Amino acid sequence: METYPIQIGSVTRRVPLHEPFPGVRIPLVDFLGDVEFVRAVAQELLPKMPEDADLLVTCETSSIPLTHELASARELDYIVARKRRRPYMVDPIIQEVESLTLGAVEVLWLDRRYAEKILNKNVVLVMDVVASGGTMKALEKMVNRAGGRVIARLAGFHQGETDLEISTVAELPQL
Amino acid sequence: METYPIQIGSVTRRVPLHEPFPGVRIPLVDFLGDVEFVRAVAQELLPKMPEDADLLVTCETSSIPLTHELASARELDYIVARKRRRPYMVDPIIQEVESLTLGAVEVLWLDRRYAEKILNKNVVLVMDVVASGGTMKALEKMVNRAGGRVIARLAGFHQGETDLEISTVAELPQL
Repeated sequence: METYPIQIGSVTRRVPLHEPFPGVRIPLVDFLGDVEFVRAVAQELLPKMPEDADLLVTCETSSIPLTHELASARELDYIVARKRRRPYMVDPIIQEVESLTLGAVEVLWLDRRYAEKILNKNVVLVMDVVASGGTMKALEKMVNRAGGRVIARLAGFHQGETDLEISTVAELPQL
Repeated sequence: METYPIQIGSVTRRVPLHEPFPGVRIPLVDFLGDVEFVRAVAQELLPKMPEDADLLVTCETSSIPLTHELASARELDYIVARKRRRPYMVDPIIQEVESLTLGAVEVLWLDRRYAEKILNKNVVLVMDVVASGGTMKALEKMVNRAGGRVIARLAGFHQGETDLEISTVAELPQL
């Protein structure tokens, strides 16, 4: 199987290539389950996190370990928007993701008890990989609707083109 | 809003009550986003983790931060079974969850590249909250099908009755 090498600090991973469309191959970075890799990416992102951050916001699933590490290093809490409605949610914020690549329409759900924690807070958005930026834009709209201020956008990797200003560790090529 | 107090070590949380059925109320523990609470639960669970553990296995979503903390403390990797098929999955293990409480049938998906990592490994299953144990049993079947050995089952909390032998930190009441 063909792989692609990714080096972050002293950590190297050879990741598999995924072919979402014929002739297009992208490195398949995975933050779920690889503690050493997540820590290495977090170390690179920490200097890019503003000092006045109050709270991190992400969405499930694969961005959770990176967000957990970043929040842990700064002793901050974080909030995870869900991609399915959970039975216990009361009066959730429902935010559609506008995306050209997903095909199906995706929706983010944020329970009201978490939305209340965002009010008047300086929020840092965190994702593992950002492509067009549609999901991150939806997170930002959600934070704005909850009365928070997005002061930075962090991502482990960026892939493709986006008009969003995002701090990342590395660019992933399309092969 | 009525809340229920949970104390783990020196960390106390007053969690909301959720009423899944009329007359039944359960404390709504949430491991997503609360670094201090997750660490406290992990500290209590670590002594219950066998020394010969090779790998942790869990499923998305809310059990990920606890599994990440436990894996991190032992310098182990972990594997996250998914609840939806991901587009990049090749020849995944598909495992149905038998559950009396879920209503809908739930299915766990494990990409083959992760299943291969489980072969001949001593696996510790991790979940945040176990009720009937249906999801944990499905995880165990999945590990067995991948050729691994489950040597322990850890959960932050247990709620209700199960016939599984599980090491937990505390019991959650039904109120």
